[in-house]
Amino acid sequence: MFDSMWTVKVVSLGVVALSLSLELLFWLFSRRRSERITNKVLFFPSEVACVEHIFSPTLPHSHVCSLPHGVDTSFSRLLRYILSACSSLDLCLFSFSNMDLSRAVLLLHSRGVTIRVLTDKVYSAISGSQIGVLRKAGICVRCDVSAVHMHHKFAVVDGRTLITGSLNWTLTAVQSNMENIIITEEPDLVQPFVKEFCRLWGLNDSAQYLSSLTD
Amino acid sequence: MFDSMWTVKVVSLGVVALSLSLELLFWLFSRRRSERITNKVLFFPSEVACVEHIFSPTLPHSHVCSLPHGVDTSFSRLLRYILSACSSLDLCLFSFSNMDLSRAVLLLHSRGVTIRVLTDKVYSAISGSQIGVLRKAGICVRCDVSAVHMHHKFAVVDGRTLITGSLNWTLTAVQSNMENIIITEEPDLVQPFVKEFCRLWGLNDSAQYLSSLTD
Repeated sequence: MFDSMWTVKVVSLGVVALSLSLELLFWLFSRRRSERITNKVLFFPSEVACVEHIFSPTLPHSHVCSLPHGVDTSFSRLLRYILSACSSLDLCLFSFSNMDLSRAVLLLHSRGVTIRVLTDKVYSAISGSQIGVLRKAGICVRCDVSAVHMHHKFAVVDGRTLITGSLNWTLTAVQSNMENIIITEEPDLVQPFVKEFCRLWGLNDSAQYLSSLTD
Repeated sequence: MFDSMWTVKVVSLGVVALSLSLELLFWLFSRRRSERITNKVLFFPSEVACVEHIFSPTLPHSHVCSLPHGVDTSFSRLLRYILSACSSLDLCLFSFSNMDLSRAVLLLHSRGVTIRVLTDKVYSAISGSQIGVLRKAGICVRCDVSAVHMHHKFAVVDGRTLITGSLNWTLTAVQSNMENIIITEEPDLVQPFVKEFCRLWGLNDSAQYLSSLTD
């Protein structure tokens, strides 16, 4: 009788402990997942501030620049998200003339990050476009070969962070217009963009395009 | 002795039952939450197809329309998300000339949905803009009073669903360009847009603006 009571006690307590452990693990897992997934929104125009410290964090720049320093702006946050790329950066941009964003892309390229740029044919040729600069630096650029506009304005960082919105990568968009950008790691949102980038990248392979014309 | 064994048994089973119930409730709640949150992406150009059945589901339209019928396209999905509004629709649009989207907004207005339209001053005056049509129907429209472009292209449905992306509400954007739209109920993404809409709506109150000029 005494033994059976102890058996019941031990089994019951074991079940309670197991159940509570599972609950705790599940809660921790859910919490970690929601903490891990970034969902941010940036609005523009951005305050104008010095961004030198983002490119060269160790150097003092305040004496050579008259802009406000140490200010966290929408643009400085955008630059940081772009510069967080470790392995790859896929850009699908209608217009790209912003020199700070171009500098960020060139810096990533010099660090060995694999960069692919897909852009609109017409806008890549306008005055101030940074597409030629990126090409000269050896970055892989493709212009869309269709008669319509490639009007996207998105970037995928390391295949897992999507940066998308209304903002073209121009100075006017950053400093003047009312614009928005979403930064998200939500797989349901990121994966369709990753897939679409690959589809468009393949479609706009000029070698394939030229070969199809001569077939 | 027999009584105390039964007490231990009952208490232990009670704790197990409570613990398992909590775990089940937590799991069901998490599951419902993730099922409830919509995260969709639509890419354009959209296939051209008849959308009459979306406006009048009960009427047969195939005999009066030469376009393909019953095709689920990016545009038909966008229309459905817009038409799902029950209480409110806030639009913040750079350019609005698409007649089907205008028809959807007018239909919602006739159903008693509260509609607010914030748009770019310059683009609201171009040929084909639907802004005048919406105003004439009694829909509350405000044009931005600043010297820069209101370049947003977002809608908030019932204060909880965000529709945003690169797509201007024009026929070219829908049928020709390469564009994207995100539809999300993720509060971290929706709430900043709700707040920004309210801020811009207040900023562009022409009555307030005129009063500030005469102060």
